[in-house]
Amino acid sequence: MSGPVSNEVQATPAPAQTETPAPTAAPAAEGDAGAAPAGPSKNELKKRAKEADKAKKAAERAAREEEEKRQREAKEAEDHAKQNYGKLPLHQSQERNGQIRLKFADLNEKSVGQRVTFRARLHNMRPQGAKIVFLTFRQQTLTLQGVLVVSGDKDEHQVSKQMLKYATLIPTETIVLVEGVIKSAEVKSCTIQNFEVGIQKIFTAVEVGDLPFSVDDAARPESDFLRMETEDVQFARVSLPTRLDNRIMDLRTPTNQAIFRVQSAVCNLFRTYLDSQGFIEIHSPKLQGAATESGASVFKVSYFNGTAFLAQSPQLAKQMAIAGDFEKVYEIGPVFRAEDSNTHRHMTEFTGLDLEMAIEEHYHEVLETLDSMLLAIFKGLKEKFSHEIETIRKQFPCEEFLFLEKTLVLPFKEGMQMLREAGATDSEGKPIGDMDDMSTENEKFLGRLVREKYKTDYFILDKFPLAIRPFYTMPDPSDPTLSNSYDFFMRGEEILSGAQRIHDPAFLVERMKAAGIDPTTMSGYLDAFKLGAPPHGGGGIGLERVVMLFLKLGNIRRASLFPRDPKRLNP
Amino acid sequence: MSGPVSNEVQATPAPAQTETPAPTAAPAAEGDAGAAPAGPSKNELKKRAKEADKAKKAAERAAREEEEKRQREAKEAEDHAKQNYGKLPLHQSQERNGQIRLKFADLNEKSVGQRVTFRARLHNMRPQGAKIVFLTFRQQTLTLQGVLVVSGDKDEHQVSKQMLKYATLIPTETIVLVEGVIKSAEVKSCTIQNFEVGIQKIFTAVEVGDLPFSVDDAARPESDFLRMETEDVQFARVSLPTRLDNRIMDLRTPTNQAIFRVQSAVCNLFRTYLDSQGFIEIHSPKLQGAATESGASVFKVSYFNGTAFLAQSPQLAKQMAIAGDFEKVYEIGPVFRAEDSNTHRHMTEFTGLDLEMAIEEHYHEVLETLDSMLLAIFKGLKEKFSHEIETIRKQFPCEEFLFLEKTLVLPFKEGMQMLREAGATDSEGKPIGDMDDMSTENEKFLGRLVREKYKTDYFILDKFPLAIRPFYTMPDPSDPTLSNSYDFFMRGEEILSGAQRIHDPAFLVERMKAAGIDPTTMSGYLDAFKLGAPPHGGGGIGLERVVMLFLKLGNIRRASLFPRDPKRLNP
Repeated sequence: MSGPVSNEVQATPAPAQTETPAPTAAPAAEGDAGAAPAGPSKNELKKRAKEADKAKKAAERAAREEEEKRQREAKEAEDHAKQNYGKLPLHQSQERNGQIRLKFADLNEKSVGQRVTFRARLHNMRPQGAKIVFLTFRQQTLTLQGVLVVSGDKDEHQVSKQMLKYATLIPTETIVLVEGVIKSAEVKSCTIQNFEVGIQKIFTAVEVGDLPFSVDDAARPESDFLRMETEDVQFARVSLPTRLDNRIMDLRTPTNQAIFRVQSAVCNLFRTYLDSQGFIEIHSPKLQGAATESGASVFKVSYFNGTAFLAQSPQLAKQMAIAGDFEKVYEIGPVFRAEDSNTHRHMTEFTGLDLEMAIEEHYHEVLETLDSMLLAIFKGLKEKFSHEIETIRKQFPCEEFLFLEKTLVLPFKEGMQMLREAGATDSEGKPIGDMDDMSTENEKFLGRLVREKYKTDYFILDKFPLAIRPFYTMPDPSDPTLSNSYDFFMRGEEILSGAQRIHDPAFLVERMKAAGIDPTTMSGYLDAFKLGAPPHGGGGIGLERVVMLFLKLGNIRRASLFPRDPKRLNP
Repeated sequence: MSGPVSNEVQATPAPAQTETPAPTAAPAAEGDAGAAPAGPSKNELKKRAKEADKAKKAAERAAREEEEKRQREAKEAEDHAKQNYGKLPLHQSQERNGQIRLKFADLNEKSVGQRVTFRARLHNMRPQGAKIVFLTFRQQTLTLQGVLVVSGDKDEHQVSKQMLKYATLIPTETIVLVEGVIKSAEVKSCTIQNFEVGIQKIFTAVEVGDLPFSVDDAARPESDFLRMETEDVQFARVSLPTRLDNRIMDLRTPTNQAIFRVQSAVCNLFRTYLDSQGFIEIHSPKLQGAATESGASVFKVSYFNGTAFLAQSPQLAKQMAIAGDFEKVYEIGPVFRAEDSNTHRHMTEFTGLDLEMAIEEHYHEVLETLDSMLLAIFKGLKEKFSHEIETIRKQFPCEEFLFLEKTLVLPFKEGMQMLREAGATDSEGKPIGDMDDMSTENEKFLGRLVREKYKTDYFILDKFPLAIRPFYTMPDPSDPTLSNSYDFFMRGEEILSGAQRIHDPAFLVERMKAAGIDPTTMSGYLDAFKLGAPPHGGGGIGLERVVMLFLKLGNIRRASLFPRDPKRLNP
């Protein structure tokens, strides 16, 4: 059965902590090989007798030691629990017995009394005297208490002192395979508080090296550190850079296990809603022959003997899909921004959830689709992911995310007016005007004003001034200074920007010129519309930003599995 | 209501083809301003009388022309159908009346007699005499016949001669807005063969420029061109490069509309199956600090003052997610390969459908998950996308894709034996050995042998020789020359490659050294396992390859919305 696996141990479980081996044999008697050859003298005979005596004693000692060893081994053989613990080989099973392994999430009242097997991380351990140890096992967001008690010799499922010692020496984070019986219990220190497992077997499946920090420390809420000021407690704080440098360790916290389940759910809810509305999913190329939007910063790629650019958004591709008659499309994919922004909400690569659709009558069809999609996400998360949200709130407590049954759609002008009335000013300290761009600070301020007035953390700003939107934005037919465009906000931060796009190539050229763009530099974009595209609009959300704001994580990197920013490309 | 939209026409519909305008006024009488100033001579008086006469005649002519114009306008005003056709403005609706617009897919027996409005492409047109024209309208994969008949003056929904003329001059591919009544009919030339629409109103919504080719030509099956050899017919063949250069036009064929619905469905079925198995979706960064797999060709990206690399697979990220305790993860995302391969099945960017999962007992848990996932895709496509598959088969006829209820899992050795027995040789013409790599040609040959023997186009080769797999592949515990790895095949082409990975860092170092890789160059990869990862395995399929092979499209570019290869970065 042994393969080429050098560090594989024998399949038969054996205690990892072996006793110090007894000397295997008495040292050979030493002789003075350097003496001159002659008949044995008296002295020599005496010496020989002495040596014979020495050898005899040595032999006796060896025999004694041999006996001691035998006795020790016999005593060891008395460890009838030997087969119940130890280290598993690298190839843990050469065969499949199809044994069902418990997922903690499946535990319920019916589990009580059942014999179960499960694999889990050893989360922590509390020995209690010489005969009992409490071990906490972890599976993703859940922890279960295990109890190991030294049993009498006659117990069918023996737990020996040796087994207890073995268990207490297992480092935390080791992956263990456990067999035991589920019992009713009251456990405050675990997420599973009604049950515990009486351990009958415990094997180490995968060992771990030095840990950069503990999962417990990585999962501490800020309130723990505040306690240090008033109580006699001491906690290690794990900084964000340390977490990100050791992201694998950090990801094991129940908080992160829950965050990325929420992230996965957002994508699922996004697609499920749009699928129900007749959208199809597309995959557009990230390698572009030309920079898609002039002015913005794009990553350059060496492409054989030429240069390519990484797409900063799938917008052109989505629009081409509409010109290609797909009517309603969405895409979930990476988006690249070569901006040297080192803030809590910028990354150089993030996941875009984008959609584009043909308009039948009015661009509000798009706005309403985007709104319904976001409401489906918020509701879906609240309904189906309350356990995850609750888990995350333990580390990141925050006010409940508020949204209305009917979303507030605020004209941009009204938003500006609310800000002005509340005393908001522009960067020069002057009162803001209706046609100004809205600063990030004023966005947040408006978020607070809206929350106060309308009791919602989610709303839409509609009808942005034309001048502050990209050239391809369709103007408002009834006011040439405004545009058919909108931004969506969560907790005072923009999560979605979108608009009706200009679908007429001649008008696009006119708008390009007005924006100071030479149309010949964007012929690829223009070509897309020369074959006729229906009126259309769309928008895109940043997945990580939505997750960050819904859960109020404070930094977008916490919502990204392996975040990328100007200073971070690893792990 | 008019915005800054320069090319916008008035909202009131007006005929686009106006009659040649009548001269608006008589030309001013010409005088010889160069003559010397003097008292009027006889000649001069005669001349003046002549001129007065001329002026009078001119005035009479002007009056006559004015009257003719009036009469013409009066006659034109008699076109009571004026409001039933014309060109729509850029902003097609300033208001929303919420009118429901027909999707051809929703037509059924109950539609007969209903008055409907729809937007569609004008697919083609057949005038029949002076009073009737047949127009074919297209929505995605469906075409519907429309009939426009000049009606009597008293008809409530008048169709005038002018309206008919307007309609016959609409270029194909124009997006039109049509109102009419659904009637029962027998139509062979359209995909909707039971119904047609009696047109009452027709407006052009979006005009088109010159077309590179027609949708009909782009949708022709090979058999059409074969007919040219025996019949007196002539068809234009649209080459693949021409299609790809004008991809937007090409995408409008019913074939392509169907192909990308199938592509979308594959992703949906992939996720739906894995969601049901407790997987979560992840999004891993495509920007990497180091080349993930040494030796293979990776695209370099200028990253601020440094260099990044585009991920050639999400494998390391997936493995890190497993080390981070996510247990079962999948990802759908772009994969980049800087290989200068110009074949029917290589692209520089494609969509990877990847999964990775912890193994409880045996790596066949992974193989079986991958297999069940693919079966769910095949079955889902057959059950729910028969219309699309049928549509595609019209242009790309092929043998039905065969698969078994229980998938054939063939040990690599047996595959090699089948090939050997059938006379397959290696590149040097020698009989192939059990431990050889399998050439692309032999893969195809094996595909044919398997189809013949087992009646399946889909099977798994298991237990590849260790020597021909990457260093991180887990060896077979019972035979050190083999490995716990597998490839999946469709129609004789590999669509999935996967394996159990080595999760032990010390053993990974050993295998790296054996493969001639300096472990210090891959410390990032090794670090992922030092914190302890459970045994795990996975695999990935190329979305476009699966679509190409399931539908037998013959070239992977046909399964990619905007394909990228060493020579193509646009559109």
